[in-house]
Amino acid sequence: MNPIPPHLTPSRYPKRADYDQQTIYSILDEALVCTVSFAVDNKPFSIPTAFVRHENKIYIHGSVGSHFIREIEKGLPVCITVTLLDAIVVAKSAFNHSVNYRSVVIFGTPEKIEDTTRKTQAFKWLTEKFVPNSWDYLRPFNESDNRKTTILAFSLDEASAKIRTGMPGEDENKDLPIWSGIIPIETRRLAPITEEECSAGIPLPPHLTGTMM
Amino acid sequence: MNPIPPHLTPSRYPKRADYDQQTIYSILDEALVCTVSFAVDNKPFSIPTAFVRHENKIYIHGSVGSHFIREIEKGLPVCITVTLLDAIVVAKSAFNHSVNYRSVVIFGTPEKIEDTTRKTQAFKWLTEKFVPNSWDYLRPFNESDNRKTTILAFSLDEASAKIRTGMPGEDENKDLPIWSGIIPIETRRLAPITEEECSAGIPLPPHLTGTMM
Repeated sequence: MNPIPPHLTPSRYPKRADYDQQTIYSILDEALVCTVSFAVDNKPFSIPTAFVRHENKIYIHGSVGSHFIREIEKGLPVCITVTLLDAIVVAKSAFNHSVNYRSVVIFGTPEKIEDTTRKTQAFKWLTEKFVPNSWDYLRPFNESDNRKTTILAFSLDEASAKIRTGMPGEDENKDLPIWSGIIPIETRRLAPITEEECSAGIPLPPHLTGTMM
Repeated sequence: MNPIPPHLTPSRYPKRADYDQQTIYSILDEALVCTVSFAVDNKPFSIPTAFVRHENKIYIHGSVGSHFIREIEKGLPVCITVTLLDAIVVAKSAFNHSVNYRSVVIFGTPEKIEDTTRKTQAFKWLTEKFVPNSWDYLRPFNESDNRKTTILAFSLDEASAKIRTGMPGEDENKDLPIWSGIIPIETRRLAPITEEECSAGIPLPPHLTGTMM
C-alpha cells in the first residue's frame, strides 16, 4: 500500500493515521462489531454487524434472506468501520476536549464464500472470536446451518487505522488552574449467566470458566 | 412516523425494531460515538465521531477544515448508526449464537448551525455529555473556538432502534447437554488520571469525583 491512496489519508490529524498491518489487525481482533456502509442510488445505508479477521481478510455473515446481505453480495463497494473508545480526554477548554480511540476504515467489495468447507471455517473463526475454544463443544455445524447463512469476505488491502492516545494537547491554556487529564473507558466481559430453561444444571464448560477479562 | 417507511423496516427480525421515541433517545444518550456514512459517486464513506442528542436532533462537530464535514455540509444524505453491545449470546449450536445489542439507525441530511449562540449551546451539550456539569468550570468558550468549528444537526424524524435482549433462542437443540446462556459486556468509566505536566496539584473538580460508573 504505497503510495497511500487519498481516500485512506485523513484530512484532519494525518499523523494519527497508521498503515501498519499488525496495528490494524490488533484493533480488528479486539473489536466485536463493525459498521458496514454501502450506497444505493447515491444514498448511504449502514448496518452494525459481528465480524472476524483471519489473515488479511475480514468475514461477516448474515441470513441468506437478509436485504442487506443480498444488496452488497452483488458486489457493491462498501466502507467498513471499527471503533474502540479508550478514554475521554478532558482539557482545560471545551474546545481541546477529545477522545482516545483506535479505529479502522476498510474499503472493499465483498467476496461471497460459496465453498462449504470455507464457509464452515469462517463460521468457526467467527464463533471462536466471541467464545474462544468453543467450537468442538457445540452441537456440530451442519448442512442446514450452512445453507441458511451467507458468508462475505473483504480484503484488508485498503485498510487504515487512526489512533489517538495520551493526554490532552493544551497550548495557550496550559497555565490555567483547571484540571485536565483523561477518563479511561473499559469494556469487559462479566461472568456468564446460565439460560435456566434448557441449561439448568449443565456445568459451565472449561473454555467459559474464567472468561472475565 | 406512521406508516413506517421501508428503509426503516429491518428485513431480518422485524420484531426487534422499535420506533418508540424514548427508546431511541435512551440509546442515543448512552452511546458516546456514532458512525456517519455518506456516498460520493455511489461510493460509501463512513466516519466514527462523537455526538450528542438534544430534543429531537443529534449534533456532531468537526473542524471547518475537515474533508468529511465539508462534504456532508453541502446537504448530502447521511445514514448514522449507533450501537451498544450488551452481551454475547451463547447457544448450544454455533448457528444460534447471537449478540444482545441496542442500535439506532438515522437517515437525514445535515442542518449547518450558523448562529453563534446555537453553536455554543451545541458545544456545551456535547461537552457535558462526555463530562457532565463541566461547562462552567472550563476556560470559557470563545469566538475563535466557534470560528474553527462546524456544528451539524440531524433530525431524528427518520430514526429507528433495533434491540435484542435475553437468552438464546433454542429449538431442536434444547435438550442437548450443552451449556447456553449469555456473557454480559460492561462498558464503564474508570477513575480520572491527571495530566501531570499542566495539571499536577490541581484538585479534581467536584463534577469529576465519583465519575466511576
